[in-house]
This record gives sequence, structure tokens and C-alpha cells, in this order.
Amino acid sequence: MTAVTDMSFTKPIPAYLAQRYMGWRATTFQENRGWYRRLAEEGQRPRAMVISCCDSRVHVISIFGADQGEFFIHRNIANLVPPYEPDGDRHGTSATVEYAVTALRVAHVIVLGHSRCGGVQGCYSMCSGDAPELEEKTSFVGRWMDILRPAYETLPDADEATRLTALEHEAVRVSLRNLMTFPFVREAVEAGTLTLHGLFNDIAEGSLWTLDPPTGAFQPV
Amino acid sequence: MTAVTDMSFTKPIPAYLAQRYMGWRATTFQENRGWYRRLAEEGQRPRAMVISCCDSRVHVISIFGADQGEFFIHRNIANLVPPYEPDGDRHGTSATVEYAVTALRVAHVIVLGHSRCGGVQGCYSMCSGDAPELEEKTSFVGRWMDILRPAYETLPDADEATRLTALEHEAVRVSLRNLMTFPFVREAVEAGTLTLHGLFNDIAEGSLWTLDPPTGAFQPV
Amino acid sequence: MTAVTDMSFTKPIPAYLAQRYMGWRATTFQENRGWYRRLAEEGQRPRAMVISCCDSRVHVISIFGADQGEFFIHRNIANLVPPYEPDGDRHGTSATVEYAVTALRVAHVIVLGHSRCGGVQGCYSMCSGDAPELEEKTSFVGRWMDILRPAYETLPDADEATRLTALEHEAVRVSLRNLMTFPFVREAVEAGTLTLHGLFNDIAEGSLWTLDPPTGAFQPV
Amino acid sequence: MTAVTDMSFTKPIPAYLAQRYMGWRATTFQENRGWYRRLAEEGQRPRAMVISCCDSRVHVISIFGADQGEFFIHRNIANLVPPYEPDGDRHGTSATVEYAVTALRVAHVIVLGHSRCGGVQGCYSMCSGDAPELEEKTSFVGRWMDILRPAYETLPDADEATRLTALEHEAVRVSLRNLMTFPFVREAVEAGTLTLHGLFNDIAEGSLWTLDPPTGAFQPV
Repeated sequence: MTAVTDMSFTKPIPAYLAQRYMGWRATTFQENRGWYRRLAEEGQRPRAMVISCCDSRVHVISIFGADQGEFFIHRNIANLVPPYEPDGDRHGTSATVEYAVTALRVAHVIVLGHSRCGGVQGCYSMCSGDAPELEEKTSFVGRWMDILRPAYETLPDADEATRLTALEHEAVRVSLRNLMTFPFVREAVEAGTLTLHGLFNDIAEGSLWTLDPPTGAFQPV
Repeated sequence: MTAVTDMSFTKPIPAYLAQRYMGWRATTFQENRGWYRRLAEEGQRPRAMVISCCDSRVHVISIFGADQGEFFIHRNIANLVPPYEPDGDRHGTSATVEYAVTALRVAHVIVLGHSRCGGVQGCYSMCSGDAPELEEKTSFVGRWMDILRPAYETLPDADEATRLTALEHEAVRVSLRNLMTFPFVREAVEAGTLTLHGLFNDIAEGSLWTLDPPTGAFQPV
Repeated sequence: MTAVTDMSFTKPIPAYLAQRYMGWRATTFQENRGWYRRLAEEGQRPRAMVISCCDSRVHVISIFGADQGEFFIHRNIANLVPPYEPDGDRHGTSATVEYAVTALRVAHVIVLGHSRCGGVQGCYSMCSGDAPELEEKTSFVGRWMDILRPAYETLPDADEATRLTALEHEAVRVSLRNLMTFPFVREAVEAGTLTLHGLFNDIAEGSLWTLDPPTGAFQPV
Repeated sequence: MTAVTDMSFTKPIPAYLAQRYMGWRATTFQENRGWYRRLAEEGQRPRAMVISCCDSRVHVISIFGADQGEFFIHRNIANLVPPYEPDGDRHGTSATVEYAVTALRVAHVIVLGHSRCGGVQGCYSMCSGDAPELEEKTSFVGRWMDILRPAYETLPDADEATRLTALEHEAVRVSLRNLMTFPFVREAVEAGTLTLHGLFNDIAEGSLWTLDPPTGAFQPV
């Protein structure tokens, strides 16, 4: 640590977070230090991978009472998985799936959608012509939401709220279908060592819906 | 929701997760339903974005005692941010940064690295010639870790454990530097409306280290 | 600001406070200025209202690690809420409750009592005939503590220390019951958008007690 | 504690606050338990009373780096003090002033105003005829803001933002003048054992302004 690397465009941790960390360290960490040390020394062995949205209101850890070591969690805009494209370019989401399934050999991959999703709302506005800025080549959000674009055409003829929810549901289904385009995912699913699951969290109601395999509809847990 | 879409390659939610969800719903959700409803109706207003690893042992929510609505969280392999490349391709991580900074206008972006990172270990093995499979064009993890590859050349001449930790530290610094290549990040930082922070979590020790801006070294919080 | 208004009965800020403010401004404010500016421009959205005593030893901010924007805080003598009396007179405490519940729509109202409360001690002395000066019409403290006077009759037959603690506990219960006499509080509680909570802080022990809803007793957190 | 008092309209403390309290207890309390115990056993001896707004963005504790035992703090809507009225009715704010000055014998009373005050905004709207609901006899906020009503007539002929700031400044001056109508305040001020101070906090700028005694204007600290 002797080399000096000027990072003066950054700032130290805000004090309120430092204080909260001190509280965690004095309580939760102390209570679990034996287990955490083992997790560090022996490596993680998570049972499931969860793919959820970055949205601050989606709390997979809390909803599932998860503790350190339980879930390998990837969070991106609108919980989307792109199709398999081994073209040598960077694919951050595909890298997480590859690592979870081939290196960690998780038993479950769960795609967790949610209501009031800003990313899905943006996709909807873009597809209905109300957000031309998202059509720009330079819009990272727009280009990312292109993954969901084909689903817009399949939306039911209904009021906007219904169509938005339908598109949020589609974000889960599209990701699950795209997961199956990865050869290592398909092989593990077919070998019975991996199962895929679709879930949907309604934030206002605190309700959780599970994707029904035969019908593809979401049903209350 | 009457249309049928065969999703029979998926499974319903595992029972142990359904049971945990029921526990959350009967307790935490009941205690906070007024607040969660408001968050749903009025939208999120997270104060900070956190970019962390998918690793199941990294618990940013727990360490910072965060509740719903506080943090916009992106998690990927090795908490990496690629440089700004508005080429019209999909860039999932760049989309999360764009959304957090321009739409949500978060006040802080925190890059949280951690010890024993499998992604960084893979990068190290790849760069030292011990993991030819990661050099394959079809390796998503390998191509993703290319973001960190240049940092390998800067590692100190030391034992492997020291060099690995140094590379884990570099993953935080590289991401922070790449964040500054995004025009909207740089503008917000220069306007004083956004601050960037580097943190590092040692899993075994439960310790948290903050990046010291003048020296670029990590110091205990 | 050119008009002159003689305020020469006042003094400028004491130097020791000016110096501390300079410290805050150079540190905490600098670290958080983006967030504080947003709070100023977009308005506050506190999750909870806390009603506590003015006592200098009661530190709700510190105990709950609260930062700017989190709690709407009313502090008065003995954390008392009077009953609903819309008679057109000034009711400062009722105004704070009205503003928190109807304008800010907080999700929680927390009444935080504490040990060694001078106001409760005064009420006890007054009711036991030892403080005739508090019975005077001109005693603001006495007339304010009249809110708690009926509870004195319900105290257990025990030693004084026990009876004082019981009266401090009653101050929390009386306030919570009086809160329910406000129509807008009752409606929000019944609609599930607001929850009421009773807490008690023992200053010497640093302990926190939560009011158990079915029994009305205080139990350690 | 054997008696049962049904308080089932309340709820236990929310878990996120219980967790934060645990963190405080394991850190700040442990570090200071000797001092806190003395404060409990020997009683508080605060140097100053602060009268500030309930607004969640006004952090007197933080701004002045105050620890337990330093400030006796009263917080109400718009940091107002009514005039001396010993009519035998409840006057919560007057009770806090009486207790601080006559029982605790504080050396300073500080009235701390702030920008973007919702209470002052309400008063402004009410006085300009835009908020008839605040004129209702049943409006606690309206009747409380009547304390400030006379100051509306003295506002400069200027744009609304300027007039609002002027009214926020007046809230401090009115409270200070009303403090002097309390005989025990005036006597202590004239005896030199108590000093009164006016301060104003601009939330967005993090700036603090002190009331200049000869001119009555606010000047940067």
C-alpha cells in the first residue's frame, strides 16, 4: 500500500454510513463471526441465484430473510437477461449467469420482477413513441430496454395500468426464456440440477406472485 | 392474464422461500405497510447508489442497516464499471449508472469491493496464464473481467495473496475512474451534486476500508 | 434586509457554537451537500414522527442513527400529547401532530418516554401535595402536566421510585391514547397507513423498552 | 408491571429501528456509559436551550456536534414562542421555556429558524388568502401560525421568495420578542445570567446566519 494513486475526485465514506457500519460490526457481525469466517475461508456455496431490479424498494434479502452466503444476487435495470450472444463483447449479466451456473452450480435461478418499475415504464414510453430520447444510440437505458421491446407488441388491448403490469410480467418471462438460450443453463435444467423460477413482487401490497409453469400466469404465493 | 403462455420449463417458487416470504409478510411488511405503500405510490428517492459484487457474502443492506427505499443497488461480477462507450450496444451496468445519476439523481455512488472475490481471482488466473478457458471468446466471465486486465500489470512484486488483494483494490479504483468517463457523472461530480466513494469489505474480518482520496490507499473505517 | 429592527436585547451566537458549526460545515455538510440540496429543493419526506421530551439526555437522533430528513421531531416537556380540542385556541403539540399526519403523511408516530424525567417528577410532587407552586394558575409547567394528572390516581401502591417509573410509563400511554382522539389519527390508524408506537429509554442503562400492545407493559427491545 | 392495559391499537417498534438502536447501544453507548450514568444520577445541566422547528431537515444536534446532556431542545412548528399568557390554560411551549429558565437555569436560549419552512409557508398562504382551510377554527396549524400573523403585514413589497424568507426571519424575531414578555426571562436577561440568540439555517446551502443585535438583520456566521 505504499504506492500513491491520486483518487482525489472521490470522497471518504459519509459519516452516517460509517456509524451504521459500526453498529453492524458490534452486533450482527459479532454474533456470526464464526460462520462468516468459514464462509470466507471455504468459499461461498449459495443455494440460489436471484436476478432482480436495482430498485431501492425491492428487498430480496429482507423478503426471504436471507443471511450472508445464501443468495448470489445480480441486480440490473428491470431484472432483464439478454439472449445468449458469445460474440467476444462484454456481457455483464451473461457473466453473472455463467458464473452462478457453471462455477457456483446454484440449484435455483430466480427472476424477480416488481411493480412500478421505472425501467419498464421507460420501455413502455419508448415503444409508444413518448420517449424519443430513449431511442437515441447514446441512451444506455434505451438500448438495455431493447431486450424487452418485442414484448410490447404482445400487450393486451387494455388501459395503460393493465398494459404496464403486463409488460412488467413479460420482463420476467423474457428473461426466463433468454436464460434457456444459454447452453449451460439448458443442460443443467434438463439434467435436473437447476430449476428456473419466475416471481413478481407488488411493492404497495407487499404481495408475491409466482409464475405458474403450465399457464405462464402469475399467481399469489 | 387469461392468455396461456407455456412456461413449463420453469418451476413454482421453492417451498422454503415461500415460507420465509410468509414470515416477512406477517412481520416486517405489516409493521411498515404505510411506508411501503407511500414508496410505491410516490416513487423511490434513494439517497445513494451502491455497486457491489453478486457474491452471496457481501451484504450491503445488512452492513448499512438499510431499509426499503434507501439504496439503488447494482450488483455484478467483481463490482466493475466499464468505461463510457455510447456505441448503441447493450451496456447493462452503464444503464444502471445512467438511470441512477440522471433519473434518480442520487447523491452518492459507492463502489464496494470485497475480499475473496471469485471474479478477481479468475482475472488473476487468466492474466497469469493459468486459466486459458477464460481467454476464450465465448467466456462471458473472461470478457467481463477484461475491464480489470490492465490493472494486472500494475500489481506489486509480492506474494500471491498480497497481489490478489491489490487486484481486488484495483477493481474499486478502476470502476471509480471509469465512472468519471461518463459525462453525466463527471458533470454532477464537478457541480457538487454527486460524490463518489470507494469501500472495501474484508469478509473474514467483518472490516470495512474506505478509499483515501489523496493517496488512493484503503484505510480502516 | 436593509430595514433596521432593533434586537439589541439579543446577542450574537456564542463562539463555541460558531466553531462547532464551522466543523460541521467543513465535514458532514461537505460530504452530503448533494443530498441536503435535494431535500431542500424537493421537500422533506420523513418516514416517522417522534414525540420526545426536551430533556438534553434523550438523543433520538443518535439512538436511531438518524440523518437529515428521516424524522419529524416534536419535543416538549414529558413527551405529552393533549386530547383533541378544536376550540380555536393555540395548541402547539396538536399542530405538530396535524402537520405530520395530514400534510407529511408519516407512516409512524413514536412516543418516546424516558427515565429521570423532571416533568414527570414535577407532576408526581404536585399530585402528592409537595409542590404547591405547580398548582398555581401561573405555572406553565403545572398546567401542562395536568395532562398526566389523572394517571397519578392509577399508580400502584409501592415505593416512590417504582411509582415514578410507573408514571413515566403512563406519560407514554396517555399520549398514545390521546393521539387516538384526533380524528385524522384514528382514521389513518384504522386505514393501516399509520402505526403508533410506544418506547421508553432508560438513560442510565442505555436500554430501550417497547410498549407491548396486548398487555400495555414495556418490554426490552 | 403486572396490571394489563390494553394498548392493542399500537404496534411494537419497527425492526429497522430496533436494529439501529442495537448498533447505538453496542458502540456509542458503550463508549460513553460512564458519562451517561452520571448524567442520569446527577441530573442534566444543559448549557443552552434550543427552540427549533420539527422539520426533519433541521439537525441542531448535528450542526452543533452536540452530545447527550448539552442542549435542552424544544421543537415545534416554525420554532415559535407565543407571548406570555398566564391564564391557567395549557401552554406547552411556555412550559418548556419556564422549565429551562427557572428550573435548569440555562445560560442561553437560541431560536433557530430555517429556510423552506412548511409552517411559515402555510402562514403566508393563509394571510394572502390562498389557504382558507387554515382559517378554520379547527385548524391547529392555522391557529398556531396566528402567532406569526401580525408579521405578515410588515413584509417588504417584493417577489414571493423574498417575502417568504423575510417571514421565516420574522418567525425568529417574533419568538425572541415574545420570550422577553416572560417576566422570568426578562429578569434573567437583565441580570446577565441568560442571553438570547437568533439563528437561521439555510438548508440547501448548509449556511448559518446569526441575528445581528443592533440591526436585527441576519448575517453569515
